[in-house]
Amino acid sequence: MIGWGTVGSGVTQILKKNSALISRRLGTRLRLVRVADLDLKRDRGIRLSPGTLTRDAVRVINDPAIDIVVELIGGLDPAEELVRAALRRGKRVITANKALLAERGRDLFAEAARVNRRIFFEASVGGGIPIIKIIREGLAANRIKSILGIINGTTNYILTRMLEDGITLSTAVRDAQKAGYAEKDPSLDLDGVDSAHKLALLSSLAFGGWADCSRIYREGISRITEEDIAYTAGLGYRIKLLAIAKQTPAGADLRVHPTLVSRRHLLAAVNGIFNAVYVEGDFSDRQIFQGQGAGEGPTASAVVADLVEAGREILSGNASVPPIIATDRELKLAPIGKVACRHYLRIPAVDRPGVLARIASILGSGGISIDSVIQRQKRKRGAVPVILMTHIAEEKALQRALDRISRLEVVRDRPVRIRVED
Amino acid sequence: MIGWGTVGSGVTQILKKNSALISRRLGTRLRLVRVADLDLKRDRGIRLSPGTLTRDAVRVINDPAIDIVVELIGGLDPAEELVRAALRRGKRVITANKALLAERGRDLFAEAARVNRRIFFEASVGGGIPIIKIIREGLAANRIKSILGIINGTTNYILTRMLEDGITLSTAVRDAQKAGYAEKDPSLDLDGVDSAHKLALLSSLAFGGWADCSRIYREGISRITEEDIAYTAGLGYRIKLLAIAKQTPAGADLRVHPTLVSRRHLLAAVNGIFNAVYVEGDFSDRQIFQGQGAGEGPTASAVVADLVEAGREILSGNASVPPIIATDRELKLAPIGKVACRHYLRIPAVDRPGVLARIASILGSGGISIDSVIQRQKRKRGAVPVILMTHIAEEKALQRALDRISRLEVVRDRPVRIRVED
Repeated sequence: MIGWGTVGSGVTQILKKNSALISRRLGTRLRLVRVADLDLKRDRGIRLSPGTLTRDAVRVINDPAIDIVVELIGGLDPAEELVRAALRRGKRVITANKALLAERGRDLFAEAARVNRRIFFEASVGGGIPIIKIIREGLAANRIKSILGIINGTTNYILTRMLEDGITLSTAVRDAQKAGYAEKDPSLDLDGVDSAHKLALLSSLAFGGWADCSRIYREGISRITEEDIAYTAGLGYRIKLLAIAKQTPAGADLRVHPTLVSRRHLLAAVNGIFNAVYVEGDFSDRQIFQGQGAGEGPTASAVVADLVEAGREILSGNASVPPIIATDRELKLAPIGKVACRHYLRIPAVDRPGVLARIASILGSGGISIDSVIQRQKRKRGAVPVILMTHIAEEKALQRALDRISRLEVVRDRPVRIRVED
Repeated sequence: MIGWGTVGSGVTQILKKNSALISRRLGTRLRLVRVADLDLKRDRGIRLSPGTLTRDAVRVINDPAIDIVVELIGGLDPAEELVRAALRRGKRVITANKALLAERGRDLFAEAARVNRRIFFEASVGGGIPIIKIIREGLAANRIKSILGIINGTTNYILTRMLEDGITLSTAVRDAQKAGYAEKDPSLDLDGVDSAHKLALLSSLAFGGWADCSRIYREGISRITEEDIAYTAGLGYRIKLLAIAKQTPAGADLRVHPTLVSRRHLLAAVNGIFNAVYVEGDFSDRQIFQGQGAGEGPTASAVVADLVEAGREILSGNASVPPIIATDRELKLAPIGKVACRHYLRIPAVDRPGVLARIASILGSGGISIDSVIQRQKRKRGAVPVILMTHIAEEKALQRALDRISRLEVVRDRPVRIRVED
């Protein structure tokens, strides 16, 4: 094991506490041969056998007694080189590193296929939820039609706190940091980068081609205000940062953005740090899998599940396995401009007669019809937001209308728009 | 494949429609060699290759070209003998037959271990939800602490209709029959037998010993009235037929009975024919898996997932696999008398002063304290039910008190009690 931080500590705890049970399930014993970490001192509450802990990751990879390398250091470098080197030495690799796999996984998975070794990555998406196994094996009979996921616990915690306690985004972010649910620099979570990484992996797996995460349409939650949360709650919606993957005739429609889901939608009740993934297959129909998406215990549980699976594979005799993820063809993506849905719009405007009429006229001339205009509360400094819901509108038309609306001199700031998932 | 009914038709449809995709995922092609069914005439909307369909199940089992036998005829006989014969001829067996596995599985799984062949049974519990794989593999790192399942779609449909439409149990049963969600004789579902079969399989898998389904405490929903549904809904509860498995110091606490769950509980929102299984592991924490628990497509999806898995096992070279279910030791069950929870009680009594006092006195002398007495509506013929919620009470004490209450001459019928899962 390379990296003995939070998840690594969880792994050593599981291997200690549930050793007998895991051996029985696997049919043999897992032995922790070496643990590499730069910090040899910190007390993780677990005593390793003497000589197990080392600062030298390369020593782990080169040890011929080691069959399986668990990479838990995170980040792109040196993780990539360590994983590649481990594969080349014939090791199976287990990793929780979604950034590495999403950004450089195409080469790594191809390398794994060349050397006939698997990369196991259950812990990289959905924490303790075995969503990789579910899609790859449990739903193997299906053409996957769509995946909707709440796969970032940090943003879900923040949005839940904003709704339940009526606090601002920045207060909720600070609370999340205090509770250990957000990084010091929370931008990878807030901007949807982490969700996009995970979505790329899920769609590569489900749709049979490599999804380039840099081409996934992505919006974060940083412009969502407590006002948006309250207005949309009044309309019976919850705002969730959804990772969306849909098969369409034009290709795979992949997006990460704040989304309105009806209070009655299965995903609306997924709150706090919980994650959930909704999967629709052509025969399995709609299913939803929910659990803790992060944290020491759940993520370590996924790593050890992969250890058991890698162990079973070794016991079964190193046979050839079809590649889990197709790297030989890139997934064709549908252009975002064609996506059509209903929208919530909040347009910060000055309080002057005729503002709504001008906005409505721009929308109307773009072919976008308004479903309802929501109550407008008088605010300080003579500014009121114009808040409305549209009927179904195509992305391209809506974007063009928003650009025109932004240029109106009565409009004070860039409009906020939130797509509705019906 | 033996049995070409509803699920079997689904299997042939999947193998036809998703053949290329499944071959790519498996790394080789699945070939449907023979299909046995007594009905050679019925149009299932699929054309089999000439010579595939036969009336002779034994021919399927004896065919040396066949690696995997799918048993979909249901029932105990001749299914048991067919499965046993298939195993002895070295076939892998896939079955959706929970009754067979729960009632006679101990011998069958032991036989499978002896001949080093697996019985795959994903389709036997939870329809399309890959719950067997999730517990066995996805949560392999965990000591499973508890499982709560809504694993019978028929009763869940009935209870949902009673709540949503205010109809009686018998009307809901008739509607379920019309919609194809209930058998002509619905007693196996209504009495909880089907849930107990599935619970036996889940707990055998999760707790590492054979769970004897005949020893599972079981109550069905047949005494639940629309009144119980309405009163408990008013208190913020939903009535669900839950299958419950909990590890306790006294052994495995296994039960199937109507249960009150808070409206805010994850399982409360699982309605209609949907199934859901809640699993708590010592590291994975709480997870919930939800999907369609029955029906042609979802169940067939599970059968074909097993086909892919059996295929992968064959490709990997017939290696020895640890038995999935321990048959060498019986799971120790906790006595039901020790179970303690809150209860809802509805006691059909005559409308006479002092009735509540007498009931309360019996409960009090049994050490059972009353949390609240619920509104009592005047009914015809001078009878009103006494409806109350207790604080936490032990089963044994409650049962004794209910026996005494039943013998009161003011009590018209056996009290209805529903346990609360907090």
